[in-house]
Amino acid sequence: MLTISDLAPETIKELLNDADAFANGKISKAKSEIFVSNLFYENSTRTKTSFDIAERKLGLQVVPFDVSTSSVNKGESLYDTVKTLEALGVNLVVIRHFQDAYYKELESIDLPVINGGDGKGSHPTQTVLDLLTIYQEFGKFEGLKIGIVGDVKHSRVANSNAEALRKLGAKVYFSGPSEWFDEGAIINGTFVALDDLVKEVDVLILLRIQHERHGEKMQISLGKYHKKYGLTKEREKAMKPEAIIMHPAPINRGVEIDSDLVECERSRIFKAMENGVFARMAILKHALESKGFEFE
Amino acid sequence: MLTISDLAPETIKELLNDADAFANGKISKAKSEIFVSNLFYENSTRTKTSFDIAERKLGLQVVPFDVSTSSVNKGESLYDTVKTLEALGVNLVVIRHFQDAYYKELESIDLPVINGGDGKGSHPTQTVLDLLTIYQEFGKFEGLKIGIVGDVKHSRVANSNAEALRKLGAKVYFSGPSEWFDEGAIINGTFVALDDLVKEVDVLILLRIQHERHGEKMQISLGKYHKKYGLTKEREKAMKPEAIIMHPAPINRGVEIDSDLVECERSRIFKAMENGVFARMAILKHALESKGFEFE
Amino acid sequence: MLTISDLAPETIKELLNDADAFANGKISKAKSEIFVSNLFYENSTRTKTSFDIAERKLGLQVVPFDVSTSSVNKGESLYDTVKTLEALGVNLVVIRHFQDAYYKELESIDLPVINGGDGKGSHPTQTVLDLLTIYQEFGKFEGLKIGIVGDVKHSRVANSNAEALRKLGAKVYFSGPSEWFDEGAIINGTFVALDDLVKEVDVLILLRIQHERHGEKMQISLGKYHKKYGLTKEREKAMKPEAIIMHPAPINRGVEIDSDLVECERSRIFKAMENGVFARMAILKHALESKGFEFE
Repeated sequence: MLTISDLAPETIKELLNDADAFANGKISKAKSEIFVSNLFYENSTRTKTSFDIAERKLGLQVVPFDVSTSSVNKGESLYDTVKTLEALGVNLVVIRHFQDAYYKELESIDLPVINGGDGKGSHPTQTVLDLLTIYQEFGKFEGLKIGIVGDVKHSRVANSNAEALRKLGAKVYFSGPSEWFDEGAIINGTFVALDDLVKEVDVLILLRIQHERHGEKMQISLGKYHKKYGLTKEREKAMKPEAIIMHPAPINRGVEIDSDLVECERSRIFKAMENGVFARMAILKHALESKGFEFE
Repeated sequence: MLTISDLAPETIKELLNDADAFANGKISKAKSEIFVSNLFYENSTRTKTSFDIAERKLGLQVVPFDVSTSSVNKGESLYDTVKTLEALGVNLVVIRHFQDAYYKELESIDLPVINGGDGKGSHPTQTVLDLLTIYQEFGKFEGLKIGIVGDVKHSRVANSNAEALRKLGAKVYFSGPSEWFDEGAIINGTFVALDDLVKEVDVLILLRIQHERHGEKMQISLGKYHKKYGLTKEREKAMKPEAIIMHPAPINRGVEIDSDLVECERSRIFKAMENGVFARMAILKHALESKGFEFE
Repeated sequence: MLTISDLAPETIKELLNDADAFANGKISKAKSEIFVSNLFYENSTRTKTSFDIAERKLGLQVVPFDVSTSSVNKGESLYDTVKTLEALGVNLVVIRHFQDAYYKELESIDLPVINGGDGKGSHPTQTVLDLLTIYQEFGKFEGLKIGIVGDVKHSRVANSNAEALRKLGAKVYFSGPSEWFDEGAIINGTFVALDDLVKEVDVLILLRIQHERHGEKMQISLGKYHKKYGLTKEREKAMKPEAIIMHPAPINRGVEIDSDLVECERSRIFKAMENGVFARMAILKHALESKGFEFE
């Protein structure tokens, strides 16, 4: 599972059903000894930890891999690293890497690779958990209006989510600083002013400012950003009664969202994290079953 | 379990009895799948590893958490980090943090937190293992004379231990460089010159010089420190026959204690480390049982 | 197991037989709870991960140890660190350390230590896996001609392998830049020009240039090194039909070996990594059984 484009809508729905079953308490354990490893070349709490927990819940053996003490420091390439883990008996790897589409150099390797985020590319497992959270809320995607706000240019979440949501029948709108849009990337996306957007959408997805990917210094102060492009208490009040708020986190509190709204009634921010474990269990199981491994 | 002040003497005695049972070979395993995570924002070998082993001995699932590769590097707060782990299904966290009383910002979180050391604050699990070591030796606390020597100002061990020992009926004395005393912190403490102290005490607890917490350069050479405030061979000879030596380690050999004395007959330094695993087993079990988890 | 010199030829053969049984699917699990820890003071992917997997395959409990967040940063010595782990209940440690013969300072500790590489000293578990790979290929060592090429001076693999291979009846030849030879270390070694060597040997072991151990700047460009001392496509064609290629990896592709040859038909580079897990299972089991632990 490398990008969300790889998945047909039927496969996405199957994953959502499996994930929802896990959310409702279903237990599934590997029938044989399976070794997996999580290769995170970028910092992560949520994605890495939720894979770690999902793997343990499925009864998999998690082999630690720490980039900072690996032979990556002796100049070993990603290809040779993954090929090595395969030779050592690892059955699946999860990779987060700062390079867009890093997985292309791994094409000749037979080992299943789950993409935990590639540069500014995609973040398909985040999309599945976001979809699950929306699906649990509304029971459908057709006709839903989804707003994605903020640092679209540097966000792999924006790209993956927009693509999947459209594929499943939702309408996707964007807002935020216009200079952070990359026209090529957001095909068919409609730009809407934030104050209009908040009144219309069923789901408002706020994106983190990716400070670490902004080469140039930001042209706007964080306080100003919050007033112009953040979810303030005023804007939250303008939202439809049943509309929900999401954010892939980590959150810059008081910037993308007023700190008091992070745990407000319509926030599904922590709910989505919870779903992250169930979504990844479904994805891991799916990938391993496709290689002949069995679960009970 | 955040500070030793939280614990009534009866609870302390209960923990000591449980820990002593583990020291005598008792085995206890969780009846259900329990996820725990150890968040160490400061370096540690003993405390972290003994939690890691205690958790595995209790049959818990240990979810790795590495501060240096987490979203802490994207500016995520301790509150949001712990809240995230809770959302992901972690059932208990152990935290060591450089900030005094870091746990105050976590008060609204329902997840049990065990304090593995907070800044210059307290280190309650170290206290329980020290108490266990003393209790195994003397079978009581009432009337015992305990000397705590050294870097009292920067030591969370000194504070936690002194408080608990007094609560349980022991008499606590302090020694070391007078400029390293913080009068507010050591209420009712009696300062005694080291050469007098060593002759009187049943237990001599030597503290590590916390080089990393001394902002200013130390005014005294390490060799001079050893002569004036360290346990030299001469001072060891002056101790009572049954008196024991303790040190929370890591040890600056030849500074707080003559290197040859580290493993001498009256040293309980490594014995106390061994007890660290049993003490933490008792504490973890206690905290998890209070949340309804069962052990066999 | 500290150096290959510690092992009698019979013990080596016993380990190879056990390892080969694991390679053929034999399963062996510890009968009791056994705690092990891997202390890697130098970077490693292959050795560390293969120990991690071998330990899990044997049903051992692996206690994480991260040098960078341990009390090593508070100046704790290797002796005190290992003594601490022993006190905490760890039953065996694997150590890789940058200091030659680091294990000498651990002599008084009762805990079994497996050497995962010491400075420019030895790397005995790598030798066992190399021997296993050769044994699987030829069914014997007597009379085999082995060529070791490259950075012999800085290679612990060269020293350990040459010693063991001679002990078992093989003939060992060396090649590479003459200034990288340390006459003292390579007793009885015969230096042969590379173009002659490749035609003669049954096994060609290429060594990685240990850039991190070359204090001085290398006097030769990497391209020139490849032409003069690397395995080029031309040299590979001159090899005997049944001869195999090995490299302890990580590989500097295009330097020690043409990148296209890394996965060529006569390469056993990834096969040897696979064997690394089986060799380490045999070594761990052997060390633990000698301390009275049982396996089923």
